[in-house]
Amino acid sequence: MTPKAKDVAFLAPFLGEARRPPPIWLMRQAGRYLPEYREVRRQAGSFWTMCMTPELATEVTLQPIRRFDLDAAILFSDILVVPFALGQNVTFEDGSGPRLGDFGGTDSLNLDQAAWAERLAAVYQALRATRRELGGDKALIGFAGAPWTLAAYMIEGHGTPDQKRARLYSYQQPQAFGTLLNILADTVAWHLMQQIEAGADVVQIFDSWAGGLPLPEFERWVVAPTRRIVEQVRVRFPGTPVIGFPRATTQTGYAAYLSTGVDAVSIDTATPLRWASEALGSRAVLQGNLDPLALVAGGKVLDDAVDAILRDTAGSRHIFNLGHGVVPETPPEHVAQLVARVRGERR
Amino acid sequence: MTPKAKDVAFLAPFLGEARRPPPIWLMRQAGRYLPEYREVRRQAGSFWTMCMTPELATEVTLQPIRRFDLDAAILFSDILVVPFALGQNVTFEDGSGPRLGDFGGTDSLNLDQAAWAERLAAVYQALRATRRELGGDKALIGFAGAPWTLAAYMIEGHGTPDQKRARLYSYQQPQAFGTLLNILADTVAWHLMQQIEAGADVVQIFDSWAGGLPLPEFERWVVAPTRRIVEQVRVRFPGTPVIGFPRATTQTGYAAYLSTGVDAVSIDTATPLRWASEALGSRAVLQGNLDPLALVAGGKVLDDAVDAILRDTAGSRHIFNLGHGVVPETPPEHVAQLVARVRGERR
Repeated sequence: MTPKAKDVAFLAPFLGEARRPPPIWLMRQAGRYLPEYREVRRQAGSFWTMCMTPELATEVTLQPIRRFDLDAAILFSDILVVPFALGQNVTFEDGSGPRLGDFGGTDSLNLDQAAWAERLAAVYQALRATRRELGGDKALIGFAGAPWTLAAYMIEGHGTPDQKRARLYSYQQPQAFGTLLNILADTVAWHLMQQIEAGADVVQIFDSWAGGLPLPEFERWVVAPTRRIVEQVRVRFPGTPVIGFPRATTQTGYAAYLSTGVDAVSIDTATPLRWASEALGSRAVLQGNLDPLALVAGGKVLDDAVDAILRDTAGSRHIFNLGHGVVPETPPEHVAQLVARVRGERR
Repeated sequence: MTPKAKDVAFLAPFLGEARRPPPIWLMRQAGRYLPEYREVRRQAGSFWTMCMTPELATEVTLQPIRRFDLDAAILFSDILVVPFALGQNVTFEDGSGPRLGDFGGTDSLNLDQAAWAERLAAVYQALRATRRELGGDKALIGFAGAPWTLAAYMIEGHGTPDQKRARLYSYQQPQAFGTLLNILADTVAWHLMQQIEAGADVVQIFDSWAGGLPLPEFERWVVAPTRRIVEQVRVRFPGTPVIGFPRATTQTGYAAYLSTGVDAVSIDTATPLRWASEALGSRAVLQGNLDPLALVAGGKVLDDAVDAILRDTAGSRHIFNLGHGVVPETPPEHVAQLVARVRGERR
């Protein structure tokens, strides 16, 4: 039931076509801004239960497609399933972000792929179920966190504004840190390939904390591990597009990131899309970069922002998306307004 | 006792000279990493008391100069003195960041300059005292927060990772937000001019939260209000250099920022200094951009990072600094190592 690429709007840019209107999906499109999501969340009791219960993950993955007819569904899951597969304890409590158990060094990680497969079986089941229910004209996106971002979570134990402990660790113990990032790259590559096998048509690598790294550290801890992932996925699935998202890196960083071999690069809210179109557009599909808060604002603010993005990407292979995830305050009707505006429909 | 510019290493770049070794100071050089600072802090009882007691502010301002012979002292103060002057309640509690009272709109602000002068009298007293005690070969830096960053604090009530409420307010009520930013620009300009009158040789404008803004919002809420400040300061003090720090903006943003008329631009940790040197170096003095965590790491990590910065700024007018403030974990002896390395001294 995997779709034929030529029939899927989402895949057109990867076949070289600067399609108008561009395909559209939204990071965190399955989320708290949707009442039907909140209902499932209430019944499930916890975020992690939703991730690890195939029928619930499938249901919330499909909700935004039903409501907005977006061009791609992204599996409802979390980047921390990889540290979980490696044996680190992961808990989600309401109101605060995720918490990870103490990181005991790379020796404490479970490198047995059979154990990973068991711990993540629900994720792949959810993907298979979603692929069965999703229309043949829609793409299904699998994803994983990038090694740098995952390592930061594993070392810090939780989300932080500056990843200070992880960054200091990388300076003070570069060899141990490099070993950790290689393990993570290989685990992420494995996880992405399992998802492709289970029905993902495209995969995205989220490096949410790529910003703030000086260029040499960005090359070493973001670009090189991501290249290692892309190379492994390429060998086994040469036809599956890979999207990379080194969020909040510099423009020099974005350009350097293309050497990872990703097919598409997701552009954050601040990076000018016109620049990306000129500097990167001939080498990669571009994705992004609507401000999630313009989506909250709606009205003319939203329309103008959409029009600017369509103008700035004219002639480029572009996938319409946000520069960051949908925030919970977003009125669902603004998403409908967005989709209609992108597709040039009168409302 | 204001120094003659020609005798002050710090001022050489502003007179057109790409001096080697470059002058050096560090953002947050007076701070918790110094035991002598912690001692004053302990006696004062609170951060705000230190800011508002001239002899204490003067003492901690001078501490890093005595210890490291840096080329400039920066007045120990806080960017939130401007909301405080405007009548908003500001409190600092240990362990958490600053808290501001509810923002009641621009009508609730006190626009009486006599009231500002009274509320901030201690700041200008501290500057005068510091100028008297500081050697004639050292520059004294005054500073203020930029309107966008101050507005975000005033609307959010505290520091946030994403300034969501302030950004949404700017989309939903652009006129009211614009009025607030104009008031802030005029208050900041007044505050900077008071500092120059009291003995500041240079002033710096900190826009700590410039990152993440899309380019049109960056132009509107960062560039335009900063230009309004620089123009006012220029008229009255044409010879006083102004340094701007639009932290974490994009490279396109940094280039656009030069239209504010600042004499120097401070470069954050992630923005490549080699790029800045090539793209901006002919139009502005560059400041920055050592990673504060390389300063914590010390040793070869620090030496290599220093050498890279000196290489990347060869031929440019450059002031050595960090890309962000000194963090409390910094061993003071690493600052000594840094200064010696920059000055090419054997240790």
